[in-house]
Amino acid sequence: MRVAFLGLGIMGRPMAANLVKAGHEVTAWSRTPGKLVEGARVAASPAEAAGAADVVWICVSDTAAVDSVLFETNGAESALREGMIVVDSSTISPARTLAIVARLAERGVEHIDAPVTGSKIGAESAQLIFIAGGEEAAIARVQPLFQAMGKLVKHMGGHAMGQAAKLAMNLQIAMIYEGFAEALALATKLGVAPEKLVDLIQSSMVRSGVIDYKAPFVLKRDYSPNFPLRLMHKDIHLTLDAAREARVKLPGLETVEEIYEVAHDEGHDDLDYAATLMLLEKWAGIEVGTAATR
Amino acid sequence: MRVAFLGLGIMGRPMAANLVKAGHEVTAWSRTPGKLVEGARVAASPAEAAGAADVVWICVSDTAAVDSVLFETNGAESALREGMIVVDSSTISPARTLAIVARLAERGVEHIDAPVTGSKIGAESAQLIFIAGGEEAAIARVQPLFQAMGKLVKHMGGHAMGQAAKLAMNLQIAMIYEGFAEALALATKLGVAPEKLVDLIQSSMVRSGVIDYKAPFVLKRDYSPNFPLRLMHKDIHLTLDAAREARVKLPGLETVEEIYEVAHDEGHDDLDYAATLMLLEKWAGIEVGTAATR
Repeated sequence: MRVAFLGLGIMGRPMAANLVKAGHEVTAWSRTPGKLVEGARVAASPAEAAGAADVVWICVSDTAAVDSVLFETNGAESALREGMIVVDSSTISPARTLAIVARLAERGVEHIDAPVTGSKIGAESAQLIFIAGGEEAAIARVQPLFQAMGKLVKHMGGHAMGQAAKLAMNLQIAMIYEGFAEALALATKLGVAPEKLVDLIQSSMVRSGVIDYKAPFVLKRDYSPNFPLRLMHKDIHLTLDAAREARVKLPGLETVEEIYEVAHDEGHDDLDYAATLMLLEKWAGIEVGTAATR
Repeated sequence: MRVAFLGLGIMGRPMAANLVKAGHEVTAWSRTPGKLVEGARVAASPAEAAGAADVVWICVSDTAAVDSVLFETNGAESALREGMIVVDSSTISPARTLAIVARLAERGVEHIDAPVTGSKIGAESAQLIFIAGGEEAAIARVQPLFQAMGKLVKHMGGHAMGQAAKLAMNLQIAMIYEGFAEALALATKLGVAPEKLVDLIQSSMVRSGVIDYKAPFVLKRDYSPNFPLRLMHKDIHLTLDAAREARVKLPGLETVEEIYEVAHDEGHDDLDYAATLMLLEKWAGIEVGTAATR
């Protein structure tokens, strides 16, 4: 298929590369000039990319960026033709997604919201899970593209339901990790060796993919960003905004958000979100390199 | 071995029954008269039970109850002899555990803290995990008893480290479930079908044994107590007390505790702790039986 790929960040670039690998004709555009994907053509604007495609795939950082690639001067909208499909793999506002769906429908263009889970490694290995909202028929039409980039498409319901479910997933990741970090800080201060706590977790019903993945890095205090703190922070904001609009109270997530605010203030934005543990350790007076890492 | 088993509650009774099944000579005592375990002798007091035993196994509801079965009039202490071992499978204060260890040591009695994870079903099927603190040699001596009641003993370190690690585990269970409940409330209010969210969770890194176990009950809004809310509430209190004493800040758990306070005020103590979801649904105006259970 002919695909315009908009956004070549930490996720978008390997996703576009996997489309090329699967034999699709990709025209790529990135806000940052000079980003390339081998085998893909480069477009000077979202409009130029969309003009050469039947499907426009968006993977940018936030709601404002999606609005910009679609609707600003030289945005993709100006090149959209009836029957085209726009797929948005960014994680953005469900409410704004519904407004975009309506605006594109006026031009006879279909929209699928399909944020992903699986982070950088999943993008590189084509093992992403797409969390999709929209019409069944449209999702079926782009199935070959989903297959080229992921292992699974979960159809959550109508428009914006992919975004709603994605927020609900990241909420859980943030809470699972905060629970782990608080448990680790407490157990360490009380005298339990961190590796022993992790071993116990792995043998129990507390075990999850989140901690399976994070624990080895945390035990080494390796906070190199797989999922940067600032992006998790952004998703938490988005989730609390959506919750406020929908009149849903999320006390746990509100508290976790306060911790991310402090982490931001202390300059940890570009570390992995696992670095929120550093704050708990600091507040508890745990000296890493001694008790915490023995 | 000759075992005095003190406490025949939701956990203690099946544990004592499994000791009998494995051929051990059990003398049981329960605060509530009339509770029996087939094949076990009944003692009129903890002291009488301990007098007929080499190992005293305690499984009661809280720190005060442990103090009482050991040190009150007709408490087990008065019948303890040098070389005996006291094993405490209750979940209690790590700090108080250290004080008990010291007091028993004066009589030449060893102590192992061995709280369990696996709840009622694990106790019945002899699949408990014991989270143990104390001397390696003492733990080795009671290995046949651990084997009769559980599938695994995790030795976490010196005295009270089993209690410390147990608190860290329940902290995580409470946080994982709160994350799930907030995710479910938000997604439901935004229009995602609850079963679809659960299915997505099961396919993702968010999956955990906690939610594998709870989700089927939650989808049916079946809050019959497997782990009663009042006991989880008690453990959260205990954890926050231990954290305060150790100068560890646990912001997430503090917030979850507030939710349990409200659940207690609203009379949900004897439901499963999963019933904390009811509060989120109430605050969000989600009508169960319609949107939430469709």
